[in-house]
Amino acid sequence: MSGWTRKDLVGIVDLSAAEIGTVLDTAKSLQEISTRSIKKVPTLRGRTIANLFFEPSTRTRISFELAEKRLSADILNITGSTSSTAKGELLKDTIRNIESLKVDMVVIRHSCTGAPHRLAEALNVSVVNAGDGINEHPTQALLDMFTIREKKGRLKGLKVLFVGDILHSRVARSNIWGLTKMGASVVLCGPKTLLPPRIEELGVTVTTNLREAVKDADVINLLRIQKERQDQSFFPSIREYAIAYQINSEILKKAKPDVLIMHPGPVNRGIELSSEVADGPYSVILDQVTNGLAIRMAVLYLLSGAKSIESKKE
Amino acid sequence: MSGWTRKDLVGIVDLSAAEIGTVLDTAKSLQEISTRSIKKVPTLRGRTIANLFFEPSTRTRISFELAEKRLSADILNITGSTSSTAKGELLKDTIRNIESLKVDMVVIRHSCTGAPHRLAEALNVSVVNAGDGINEHPTQALLDMFTIREKKGRLKGLKVLFVGDILHSRVARSNIWGLTKMGASVVLCGPKTLLPPRIEELGVTVTTNLREAVKDADVINLLRIQKERQDQSFFPSIREYAIAYQINSEILKKAKPDVLIMHPGPVNRGIELSSEVADGPYSVILDQVTNGLAIRMAVLYLLSGAKSIESKKE
Amino acid sequence: MSGWTRKDLVGIVDLSAAEIGTVLDTAKSLQEISTRSIKKVPTLRGRTIANLFFEPSTRTRISFELAEKRLSADILNITGSTSSTAKGELLKDTIRNIESLKVDMVVIRHSCTGAPHRLAEALNVSVVNAGDGINEHPTQALLDMFTIREKKGRLKGLKVLFVGDILHSRVARSNIWGLTKMGASVVLCGPKTLLPPRIEELGVTVTTNLREAVKDADVINLLRIQKERQDQSFFPSIREYAIAYQINSEILKKAKPDVLIMHPGPVNRGIELSSEVADGPYSVILDQVTNGLAIRMAVLYLLSGAKSIESKKE
Repeated sequence: MSGWTRKDLVGIVDLSAAEIGTVLDTAKSLQEISTRSIKKVPTLRGRTIANLFFEPSTRTRISFELAEKRLSADILNITGSTSSTAKGELLKDTIRNIESLKVDMVVIRHSCTGAPHRLAEALNVSVVNAGDGINEHPTQALLDMFTIREKKGRLKGLKVLFVGDILHSRVARSNIWGLTKMGASVVLCGPKTLLPPRIEELGVTVTTNLREAVKDADVINLLRIQKERQDQSFFPSIREYAIAYQINSEILKKAKPDVLIMHPGPVNRGIELSSEVADGPYSVILDQVTNGLAIRMAVLYLLSGAKSIESKKE
Repeated sequence: MSGWTRKDLVGIVDLSAAEIGTVLDTAKSLQEISTRSIKKVPTLRGRTIANLFFEPSTRTRISFELAEKRLSADILNITGSTSSTAKGELLKDTIRNIESLKVDMVVIRHSCTGAPHRLAEALNVSVVNAGDGINEHPTQALLDMFTIREKKGRLKGLKVLFVGDILHSRVARSNIWGLTKMGASVVLCGPKTLLPPRIEELGVTVTTNLREAVKDADVINLLRIQKERQDQSFFPSIREYAIAYQINSEILKKAKPDVLIMHPGPVNRGIELSSEVADGPYSVILDQVTNGLAIRMAVLYLLSGAKSIESKKE
Repeated sequence: MSGWTRKDLVGIVDLSAAEIGTVLDTAKSLQEISTRSIKKVPTLRGRTIANLFFEPSTRTRISFELAEKRLSADILNITGSTSSTAKGELLKDTIRNIESLKVDMVVIRHSCTGAPHRLAEALNVSVVNAGDGINEHPTQALLDMFTIREKKGRLKGLKVLFVGDILHSRVARSNIWGLTKMGASVVLCGPKTLLPPRIEELGVTVTTNLREAVKDADVINLLRIQKERQDQSFFPSIREYAIAYQINSEILKKAKPDVLIMHPGPVNRGIELSSEVADGPYSVILDQVTNGLAIRMAVLYLLSGAKSIESKKE
């Protein structure tokens, strides 16, 4: 059905536009399961999925866990703090052990760039990157693209503006790869210290002028400001950051009347986004959460090589 | 079947005697499931329940989790320490996200009085209060009433004595609402500093004289003494507290021969209760644990609006 | 089918050779489940198993949890840090409560020698020792024996060498009981400070000379060196320990050409074992992990008294 042949999903950078389309289409077909009274299909029954979260996470972890449960998989949750990695064991040894337990898939979040890639090469089981350092967060970009396509009917030709800490954002990075492949144009906006040098080489436009940038954006995707960056002198103060880069009702007057406001969460209300806008009519933040579930179900389904969803309906 | 129409269970204060009766009767009919070899019914299969515990808890959390498993629900466990609330996210945002994941029910324990109530108002999903601050712990009161009714055959006309830290006890508070509605009379006993001012207005009797109070009690429900209260000068020392208010074999000589000894657990052996009595013939403490499971199954079942237990037997 | 009559598995010391054989044979028959596409049988569906881990553990906990899931049991995970034991509750009270929840089996790891034994006596439910202090770790010994029997075709007449910290090793202790019962001979090797006094009385040979000891060993089972022992003066330094007792390619030149290298994990690469040997052709370390799953499934299955695996195949 799908034409999907990859063992792993480690980054959007590797995917073709056709593959991205396959994930989005599959998510569309799985979306309806979570609206049923019995929110469950037996697709991955008897398969074991290990969730390895070596960085703290609530929403991504929960989204994957729920996607796995709705596909009826068996789940092993392993977090950094409870893991033997604290006892000096190497990540590779942890994963080899997991492979020896005949696990079928591994979902991994790790603070080191490339950790999921190295595992994917070393192992026979499927690996899903749930965020690696400041490199990629592919399922987030997929759910963002899915949300835009649901609301706008297309990705091609749209202008998507990212505002905030681009430098440290794996969300921005995965989105840049994905959106440009799908024919959207990407604009990055933030203080100079939070814009990666030579990022234009990825085919994006860069600006520090938010008031100009919002004017013709079809989508504004806000990035979370890490308050601790302030101590590292990336910006003088949270207050000054908010004055220059917060998206609020005032600045949205300059935007298109059908602009979409997105945020990967959790939102710092009153910093990168005013509460009024976060909860307002332009915001699709909660749609992103709902769609994240369908995207993760789609990724797990495609990687599992399951033959048909329909034939397995309960 | 049940006539139950509430979306939420946030407090006993809201319930009618008929509604309390419905929960107790439903628990009675579900009790038998946990005695089977296969302790499971498919009643809530494919429903998702999120357990949000923002206060540490072992027994209440386990009791809910097991009740959910025996009804075949899918479960998301979220605790305060692993949650993004640490990253400055508001409780409301957490819950909105959970709602976006198409969760069916939320069980919440929170240190703030009224947290479950505010959520119940804001959300479409069912909310169960698993303890909010010093306000209510409705499933504990329901399991206490169930246990008394099982042992005594009725609640009406019984005298139920609570001993200990009434001031900080959500267990006592929920029981007071429930027992008085069901026609039992309630006596509260403890040092003056641990008795809430004007609590008599709820229709209860208050005393500091334990030796008198035990005489005509049908039930004595002990409340856990928080050792850290000692530092806050609520009582001079654990030892002096135990001399005046411990229930032990000596003081039980003054009690009725068929008195029931209850405790919500975990027991401070040798403080509010002697080991001899905790493990003795009057104690129904372990029955409370068993009954808690049936009560929580009943609450989840009623809130889920499931049509029939019988027709769904495996 | 099995002739198994024990309620509990608390130690290898209690088992007969026939009983050990029954566990190994049962594991052999269950091994195949984890190689299926649907890695699950309904054998323990509707049974509840509580995993009580009062000591940190990743691999043993995961192995038990996965074994339970592949047998379709319902699982309660309770760890020391989240448990009410922190609030001063006794272990016995915790377990009594668990019994009141109609749990069917308890898997317990505890830092106190004999904790599982005392529970097994006190309770009606089955208790599995997942490691108690420095006393026993019976499922580890069973999986070690299973792995040897798989590779060598027998246990009788083999010479099994244990190298390292014998003094603090519950793995060694359980293996000594098991291997000697099964007709293998056991040699213990390590610095004098890490050899228990009078251990020869258990029917084993003791040496401090690794170079001699490896010569006729059929199996070399390495024990993990706890780096913190260095501060307690059990050995002068990690470096000196490694010079005298590390198993590496050099020392293996003296060993039999078909020697097996085992380790309960996690391996301190470069200390008790060189990476080259850990990942080399003699190593069966990952087989041990795979076999651990089958052994734990076998133990849970036998203790549950389930009548037949075959008749319950899905």
